[in-house]
Amino acid sequence: MVGLDPRLDHVPNFINKESISNALFEYNKIIIDSVCDLIPVIKIQFAFYIEHGACGVEAFKNTILYAKEKGLLVVIDSKSNDIGSTAEAYANAFIGEVFDGDAVTVTPYLGSDGIMPFIKICKEKCKGIFILVKTSNKSSGDFQDKVLKDTDKEMYESVASMVNTLGSDLVGESGYSSIGAVVGATYPEQAKVLRKLMPQSLFLVPGYGAQGGTAVDTLPCFNEDKFGAIIHSSRGIIFTNDINISKEDYSKFVRGNTEKMIADIKSVFN
Amino acid sequence: MVGLDPRLDHVPNFINKESISNALFEYNKIIIDSVCDLIPVIKIQFAFYIEHGACGVEAFKNTILYAKEKGLLVVIDSKSNDIGSTAEAYANAFIGEVFDGDAVTVTPYLGSDGIMPFIKICKEKCKGIFILVKTSNKSSGDFQDKVLKDTDKEMYESVASMVNTLGSDLVGESGYSSIGAVVGATYPEQAKVLRKLMPQSLFLVPGYGAQGGTAVDTLPCFNEDKFGAIIHSSRGIIFTNDINISKEDYSKFVRGNTEKMIADIKSVFN
Repeated sequence: MVGLDPRLDHVPNFINKESISNALFEYNKIIIDSVCDLIPVIKIQFAFYIEHGACGVEAFKNTILYAKEKGLLVVIDSKSNDIGSTAEAYANAFIGEVFDGDAVTVTPYLGSDGIMPFIKICKEKCKGIFILVKTSNKSSGDFQDKVLKDTDKEMYESVASMVNTLGSDLVGESGYSSIGAVVGATYPEQAKVLRKLMPQSLFLVPGYGAQGGTAVDTLPCFNEDKFGAIIHSSRGIIFTNDINISKEDYSKFVRGNTEKMIADIKSVFN
Repeated sequence: MVGLDPRLDHVPNFINKESISNALFEYNKIIIDSVCDLIPVIKIQFAFYIEHGACGVEAFKNTILYAKEKGLLVVIDSKSNDIGSTAEAYANAFIGEVFDGDAVTVTPYLGSDGIMPFIKICKEKCKGIFILVKTSNKSSGDFQDKVLKDTDKEMYESVASMVNTLGSDLVGESGYSSIGAVVGATYPEQAKVLRKLMPQSLFLVPGYGAQGGTAVDTLPCFNEDKFGAIIHSSRGIIFTNDINISKEDYSKFVRGNTEKMIADIKSVFN
């Protein structure tokens, strides 16, 4: 999975930046064109679009449309959810008619009220969600690692149990459920436990590459069938220090980084 | 606090709905004009704008500008945060230059990495955040009420401790900090405990009115100085069943509901 997390100061100069909306969309199109035959899915980080207001949201929408035209699945990473009609509005936006992503990330702190309106859309429209379980960042343990009195296990295991329960009646022909989990590559020991607790959930795995997770670290996120994990990289694929790079060279750079990532992950299965 | 949570099917027919962006903005303007001398702050729920794509985001931005022109403080309720540069992008968007809200809601599950980039902007630009601590919904206990082994206290108390610690060096002349907490009116017993754990934090209090919380239920969210709680109502103020109401009557309706809410809350202090 390649992450489309554009930062204007990393967008090469061959792209006209007069219109932010066009610049972000053109940039994303080149990345998508460079990798769409190599990978099945992209992740688009909402923060880097809403940061540019309505213009950014236009680029966000156009990018999703274009990625889908190119045969890619699209995961929207917004980590925004709420309860009741507000959650319905978010679900309608991100995996409903407005942006029509294939899946979206959601947070567990609100409990099942914050998840069920998304699951309703998952069922109706064959969409998916990834619930934050054990995130890749350094302070992810602040609350996720708290040991609970009733189970003598960490909080993230309790969230994993909810993911597994909610996902059990949404398992498709592949054997995997529409209800997935975010599990960071930076915590391989915890991933091993979580893989067993959620055997039917796809893991969206951040933390590989720039954040320090290695290919070996991602292994526990896969099932024994060698499926079940979607490894994410963005900065390691799309960020160049050579802002004056040509369009052709940038495309080769992005494609080369993606091929390296794929080879790196494949190598640990041998 | 009045919540600007517009649903198109509740927007009265005297508003031209050909342009969604204009319709939402006109609707909000009437509400703001009707209540701006009665209340100090509005809350604007991002989900109900992003649900309409870039058009909704335009109405969102225009509404915030207009509310500030009218002397109101603006809390953006988006419950979207992340880590590192992604969190910075969200902070820049919601309380930075893009939308320039006075405060924004954030979730605690990612730990301090998900909060610190927002606090940086709070310090630089005199803005605020409200961290979800004990939310008003029925399933808020799924994870928030889990008892932790190390403290023998609920998870929400652990989050409250973080709120209090992070907020301690951001206390202004009022005695209140820029780092606030979301505490639902539907859990008055828990609010009593939380008020003691976070004496310097403003509480953003959802759950009054439509969700079942009464004025008496909000009392534990206030400090003994009778300050410190911001009671939110949206549906109870702005939703009318009479979609054919006139502009003048709708304005009176909204103002009347707000006056009733204020009188109701004031009454419990006598």
